[in-house]
Amino acid sequence: MNYKKRALDKHRKLRGKISVELKDNLDTLDQLSTYYTPGVGSVSKHIAENPESARDLTWINNSVAVISDGSSVLGLGNIGPQASLPVMEGKCMLFKKFAGIDAVPIVLKSQSIKRIEKTIKQIAPSFGGINLEDIAAPKCFEIENNLKDQLDIPIMHDDQHGTAVVVLAGLINALKIGNKDLAKCTVVVNGVGAAGVAIIKLIKKYEPKVKIIAVDSKGIISEKRKHLDFSKKYLLDKHKIIGNKQGGLAEAMDKSDIFIGVSRADVVDQAMVRSMNKDPIIFAMANPDPEIHPDEAKKAGACVIATGRSDFPNQVNNALAFPGIFRGALDNHVNRITNKHKIEAAKTIAGLIKKPTADHIIPSVLDERLVPAIAKVII
Amino acid sequence: MNYKKRALDKHRKLRGKISVELKDNLDTLDQLSTYYTPGVGSVSKHIAENPESARDLTWINNSVAVISDGSSVLGLGNIGPQASLPVMEGKCMLFKKFAGIDAVPIVLKSQSIKRIEKTIKQIAPSFGGINLEDIAAPKCFEIENNLKDQLDIPIMHDDQHGTAVVVLAGLINALKIGNKDLAKCTVVVNGVGAAGVAIIKLIKKYEPKVKIIAVDSKGIISEKRKHLDFSKKYLLDKHKIIGNKQGGLAEAMDKSDIFIGVSRADVVDQAMVRSMNKDPIIFAMANPDPEIHPDEAKKAGACVIATGRSDFPNQVNNALAFPGIFRGALDNHVNRITNKHKIEAAKTIAGLIKKPTADHIIPSVLDERLVPAIAKVII
Repeated sequence: MNYKKRALDKHRKLRGKISVELKDNLDTLDQLSTYYTPGVGSVSKHIAENPESARDLTWINNSVAVISDGSSVLGLGNIGPQASLPVMEGKCMLFKKFAGIDAVPIVLKSQSIKRIEKTIKQIAPSFGGINLEDIAAPKCFEIENNLKDQLDIPIMHDDQHGTAVVVLAGLINALKIGNKDLAKCTVVVNGVGAAGVAIIKLIKKYEPKVKIIAVDSKGIISEKRKHLDFSKKYLLDKHKIIGNKQGGLAEAMDKSDIFIGVSRADVVDQAMVRSMNKDPIIFAMANPDPEIHPDEAKKAGACVIATGRSDFPNQVNNALAFPGIFRGALDNHVNRITNKHKIEAAKTIAGLIKKPTADHIIPSVLDERLVPAIAKVII
Repeated sequence: MNYKKRALDKHRKLRGKISVELKDNLDTLDQLSTYYTPGVGSVSKHIAENPESARDLTWINNSVAVISDGSSVLGLGNIGPQASLPVMEGKCMLFKKFAGIDAVPIVLKSQSIKRIEKTIKQIAPSFGGINLEDIAAPKCFEIENNLKDQLDIPIMHDDQHGTAVVVLAGLINALKIGNKDLAKCTVVVNGVGAAGVAIIKLIKKYEPKVKIIAVDSKGIISEKRKHLDFSKKYLLDKHKIIGNKQGGLAEAMDKSDIFIGVSRADVVDQAMVRSMNKDPIIFAMANPDPEIHPDEAKKAGACVIATGRSDFPNQVNNALAFPGIFRGALDNHVNRITNKHKIEAAKTIAGLIKKPTADHIIPSVLDERLVPAIAKVII
């Protein structure tokens, strides 16, 4: 049975992948009056008089909302809220399994920036943190920034930062294999959506001297390009990506050291890899099919290849990062996830591989050391 | 240990009373790719192409949001969203325990009608139903009515309708004990908030000939009263409660047959009960202390006495009704809970007591026959 058929069958059988359960019995009238009326009244009164005690007396110390408007779901694009629900339920499974966090899928009817922001602000008192998911670029940047300014709980758009953290983690170890100094490298990032922008920003924060060329479906993001959206202009102005080079992906990759693809299948060929400097590093993370097949990249001389797939070595998977980041934020009362947190998380993930090899630069998503190690540095 | 201390201790120990759990294992990369990427993509695609399949492939067939703005919580009043969270978590426990429904507590930052409505409309695609809770009157009426018109999932403000259903259930059996014909009775309802209004409406729907006098903290709701809010005017105009009588609660109760209190402790004395017609029925449901102590009501000649407390006979508890009503609505694809549903639910609850006695007019909230029996009539 192929994985698509198996997934549909399993979902049809379960009719929802998560459930809400009681943390204590509710079999007697005594228990009812402890957890519901009249006993619960004294708990509510206590919180009304001591607002900070809500952390000790409700589930907000361990709950996260996984929120999407369904505008940019996996490779499927804008499929709307209810079709995105299986992805959000799956994410909630991961939150529980890997980090013990009680996560709730919330999908929103409207895709307008204002409406999304207002709704999230309204429901925020119900949760200890907010994971934004599958919201299209460039609006995802504005929504996340505005909410971070207005709410006092941790908020993270995982498609941006989860991906960026894991890419940086992989890169740290890949550089060792390729014996490269990032400060002297040119990195080509192909795909300038949520993930691409966040990857560029984080790599620049980690090593300000790195040279980065960003490429979207129309070619290199250059100062000469017209009609760039604010997030791409911002990359040129504020993050100082290389803006004087023009052309397509082939021109960008020529004499570069590292290729990072968060774009589409098969846009890179062997000739393009051969045009790169010696021992190129290839992160071909388009899903389900990478920008170049790992075998081809290897033939063309790549020294390390990572993809988004679990059936090749070096799977770049957000699930390596977000469970530990939220676990740490909730446990350590961190209300704002910063660049410093993300860089520390990336270093921690990379550090779990004591002796990186070309086929093993990042841990498996099932590595149980991940969450406690990352949570420790989110302080 | 008193119940208040015990409740606080237990809440402090649990730090949240509900959790989110996985409905299947997530131990292998195969399971990960079935429930998350890449497998989940085919499930999302299927829903995008067949929107009605969301019921079969996500948790919306079994999930309810328990939503409050914290504006009217138990006897505590307007304590705000986060202080109301323990009540909502408790309600979610009841949903699971009694009806197997996955319920999620959502508390809202704003208490404005518009903002509440907009937020609920935005998050509605995430759930199979909405239980409104502890929202103050009269705004609760407008919010519920507007949402019912605009959403295609079941919505119920439980403080109104859950209470009304259980009161009607108790009344059906109490009338048998007192050998009374409701069509010839005068009912005094003291307290004209969410519960009082809903009780009046439902009793009138059940028996249009009944005479009802409504009393609030300022006295009898009469045509001569000034500054009545729209919900009280509506009772006079549309539901034809008695509008030409004036005075206080004592005047209202004089020569009446049934007293229904959803008001405050100790506002009824023995003399007032004695002023009623023979074999008066007393529902004194103020919490935690009733309008008149059952022993006093008995001394004054009451033939049946019900309260909101579990330590007296005949506890009127919403938990008798809402689990079965939502179970039925979800299972039978009922998108609008009507007066007919509520009356059928009340009759069903009453019918579970084969031989009503003065001390046993309604089942215990722990009676396992309740949910399946009620769910069957929500069609």
